[in-house]
Amino acid sequence: MDAPAPAGTTPTLIGVGVGPGDPDLITVKALDALGRADVVLVPATDTGTDETGRAEQVVLAACPGVAGRIERVPFSMAQRQGVGARRLESWQASARAAEAAFARGAGTVAFATVGDPSVYSTFSYLAAHVRAAVAGLEVQVVPGITAMQALAAASRIPLVEAQEVLTLVPVTAGLETVQAALAHSDTVVAYKGGRHLPALLDLVRGARPDAVGALGVDIGLPGQRVIALADLGDTPEPYFSTLLVAPARTRTGGRL
Amino acid sequence: MDAPAPAGTTPTLIGVGVGPGDPDLITVKALDALGRADVVLVPATDTGTDETGRAEQVVLAACPGVAGRIERVPFSMAQRQGVGARRLESWQASARAAEAAFARGAGTVAFATVGDPSVYSTFSYLAAHVRAAVAGLEVQVVPGITAMQALAAASRIPLVEAQEVLTLVPVTAGLETVQAALAHSDTVVAYKGGRHLPALLDLVRGARPDAVGALGVDIGLPGQRVIALADLGDTPEPYFSTLLVAPARTRTGGRL
Repeated sequence: MDAPAPAGTTPTLIGVGVGPGDPDLITVKALDALGRADVVLVPATDTGTDETGRAEQVVLAACPGVAGRIERVPFSMAQRQGVGARRLESWQASARAAEAAFARGAGTVAFATVGDPSVYSTFSYLAAHVRAAVAGLEVQVVPGITAMQALAAASRIPLVEAQEVLTLVPVTAGLETVQAALAHSDTVVAYKGGRHLPALLDLVRGARPDAVGALGVDIGLPGQRVIALADLGDTPEPYFSTLLVAPARTRTGGRL
Repeated sequence: MDAPAPAGTTPTLIGVGVGPGDPDLITVKALDALGRADVVLVPATDTGTDETGRAEQVVLAACPGVAGRIERVPFSMAQRQGVGARRLESWQASARAAEAAFARGAGTVAFATVGDPSVYSTFSYLAAHVRAAVAGLEVQVVPGITAMQALAAASRIPLVEAQEVLTLVPVTAGLETVQAALAHSDTVVAYKGGRHLPALLDLVRGARPDAVGALGVDIGLPGQRVIALADLGDTPEPYFSTLLVAPARTRTGGRL
């Protein structure tokens, strides 16, 4: 399928980061991109396309005028967890939806993603797939605030100061990868570790007895929870939790 | 000095991330915070307080109504590079300016910073200092898009996919720290390495002959330059450059 661009326009696919959940944490550039898109693709929830997913919630709250141009793409929790073929299936469904939109004459298609399209998103696969199918396609990326940044802001624990090193690691890469990060970085942010929280905390407290930190659950949503590292118990939390582990610092820019 | 809050209000100090330079990469929340602040502190340039610094440029472009409430705080390039006492002097000047504003009766003081207040900013020192001086102070942080994210968006090289690990390292921490990051992470972003670019490139090409990447200079500004890793020569670039080194990936989510 080679969908020609409408006369005089360049078909444009925009990956739009909508931030962690709080509609106010969207950028002006993202609002502009959503506002001028002919179609706004959003991931549907794991229970099908009848429910409003998180990216769609942010789009609707931040940019209500877009409602009539939203199209839900199947994107189950299993797929979001990167389970091989289902993950593949997910971005391929998005690519098909984008290609169909261009074939119907859309000039600009936006793909809204929670956080930032450059951080653990499938937008790049989607874009490569659509580029191969739509002649002259232009691809743009609009960055968004990540859960890591929203947690640092909410907990008021800086990610990095002065000459510190920051590592972002998905716990799905294995606890030994988290351990290596703790050994080689001042600050470590671990994504997707909620279900393994007891083991993760053992690791953190062993490697960094003096660290400060916080766990963020549903960051940017109305039910947001920020729990100090010292107050965390041995209870698992939801999969999409964010753990921030930072060095204890003095109040004047040095280390305690 | 213990400045009482104006009757009925809680004195509030807000660290506001204004993004990397493009006024459209500011969040709605940052615009709101700047709009309701009684005083907006911005770092002045190294040549004194007669010149408009980058944070001020973004504030003026994104939020022109704020112009009359902006106050410039001395913040030289030497200070930004973290040269001991001068760095200290810099955030102390900001703290004094904030305390003076609260003493004059300001309810809300914003401190505008390029990027994100949680990423290599002195806002936390400033906040701790002001908290000690102003009774009942509330501190808030509004995250902002970082140069790292803006470079990933502009170069369309994702920072991390699937189970990859990302490390952010300031080259001021030493080349051996960059080397350790290259050994333990899939993607490395090196800040402030422009002047050491030839040595940095030697390191990167030795450790990662197959990497893709880009150097960003003045990201988000009208003169923005994005140079592919493969096209980088042996010429130093400005201090505030951002180097992104990522794994070569397939177009369907795996590694090449």
